[in-house]
Amino acid sequence: MPNSSSNLPIGVFDSGIGGLTVLSAIQALVPGESLLYLGDTARVPYGTRSPETVQRYAERVASHLWNRGVKALVIACNTASTYALEPLSHVGKKLGIPVLGVIEPGVQEALAATKNGRIAILGTEGTVQGGRYQALLEQGGANVEALACPLFVSLAEEGWTEGPIATAVAKRYLENLKSEPDTVILGCTHYPLLAPTIQRLLPAVTLIDSAQATARSLHLALDGSRLLTKRQQGTVRFLVTDNVERFCRSGAAFLGQTPNPVELVDLTEPSAPFSELQQ
Amino acid sequence: MPNSSSNLPIGVFDSGIGGLTVLSAIQALVPGESLLYLGDTARVPYGTRSPETVQRYAERVASHLWNRGVKALVIACNTASTYALEPLSHVGKKLGIPVLGVIEPGVQEALAATKNGRIAILGTEGTVQGGRYQALLEQGGANVEALACPLFVSLAEEGWTEGPIATAVAKRYLENLKSEPDTVILGCTHYPLLAPTIQRLLPAVTLIDSAQATARSLHLALDGSRLLTKRQQGTVRFLVTDNVERFCRSGAAFLGQTPNPVELVDLTEPSAPFSELQQ
Repeated sequence: MPNSSSNLPIGVFDSGIGGLTVLSAIQALVPGESLLYLGDTARVPYGTRSPETVQRYAERVASHLWNRGVKALVIACNTASTYALEPLSHVGKKLGIPVLGVIEPGVQEALAATKNGRIAILGTEGTVQGGRYQALLEQGGANVEALACPLFVSLAEEGWTEGPIATAVAKRYLENLKSEPDTVILGCTHYPLLAPTIQRLLPAVTLIDSAQATARSLHLALDGSRLLTKRQQGTVRFLVTDNVERFCRSGAAFLGQTPNPVELVDLTEPSAPFSELQQ
Repeated sequence: MPNSSSNLPIGVFDSGIGGLTVLSAIQALVPGESLLYLGDTARVPYGTRSPETVQRYAERVASHLWNRGVKALVIACNTASTYALEPLSHVGKKLGIPVLGVIEPGVQEALAATKNGRIAILGTEGTVQGGRYQALLEQGGANVEALACPLFVSLAEEGWTEGPIATAVAKRYLENLKSEPDTVILGCTHYPLLAPTIQRLLPAVTLIDSAQATARSLHLALDGSRLLTKRQQGTVRFLVTDNVERFCRSGAAFLGQTPNPVELVDLTEPSAPFSELQQ
């Protein structure tokens, strides 16, 4: 017997367009689910902000999605997952809403995949410095190496994901891997677009796509909470906090089609303080 | 007889670290001047924001610098120069404070340098779409071509400004130049770091470094308003709106040394509404 909330949408948020790779993975796995995506484009990127700022932004976005009515919340952003999963999960528990980040699912699948116990994580500078992947993987008994690959984001957004430049940039980063890992986590929502190029340079390695891993974890969480819909086909709506036109243009490459419908929302004025939701 | 304000600092602002190339150019040209740099790192980058948002941010930053006391204001950011020079100049006139952007000085020097009347402008997507360079150059009688080179920013921030990858990326962008310009404006504050690589690919072209052009325009404006200091050696202070540590690390490559002293300021709470300053 499905829960009465089961036809509500799933909230998915990121600082910008990167989380669209997570949205796509969810759509592919559970096409009956409706999705409400929020790109906090007025404050993108989160990766260069301080932990306190990222937490404040993420709480603001989560409040907005909760107020609209969602049955689950996916933090489709590595930086926000690092700094805001704990406070958001805390509130989610009180509200009876599962909250997932993108880090734990990738960690779980990487630990399951590795044979030699050596796992590398590729991410932005912020994700690498945040250290969340490293801590979780080490708790799981792995030998961990983390590598920041900042140019991968620009290459993905420029659409230069294959060819000599993408290969040269990837080669220059991946040459720094020292530990001979057999498993590599794509620890940034932009990086799945570069997966074929990375795989060609590391043919023997198992690549973990954290977008797909997150979609699988979400499916399990919804099933466990009896929140899976019975519908065959869900709807998708998009919210952005700035510059709708640019979101549509840049998002198309990530989504395979132009995001539609897209609504502009203003999160600068606090309409529902986070502290109230916690009571 | 110098003006009584002549020993006040010059305010210089950007969304992040890019404007440090302008700061360096000013320091080199007028080392006696004191400088107060503000990097709005809580809201970087401006280039992907809507014009209204950029204007609001720039007004907030300018208010803060005016309240601290500056004798001139340099908008060391192409996006903010595009969308906020007019309103800020308007207030600057009332306050008796010269306000300069980075676009007009580069345009002026490019128009002076070109022999064949064909000028290309390289910038971010936002600068190219903003169209301000194109409009001013065309008013000056030039045949204009604009080319967005988004990866140049990442290359500059990564420190990959020379070598095979920088050359391959620059080549891929510059191959799109169709009009055979004899003058090319580096229309983004990050791009001067790539000047040697770009010049090698375009050996016959005159490169216009808008950071240096802006420093020269500032010198003339200060001289004209009797605001040049008599001091031999000025001081430099830095303000950022988020993440001091990252600003110091990333800024070092742009400045040639680690920025110091750096102070964190909060611009999210309006302390002096822009509208009041206009009265």
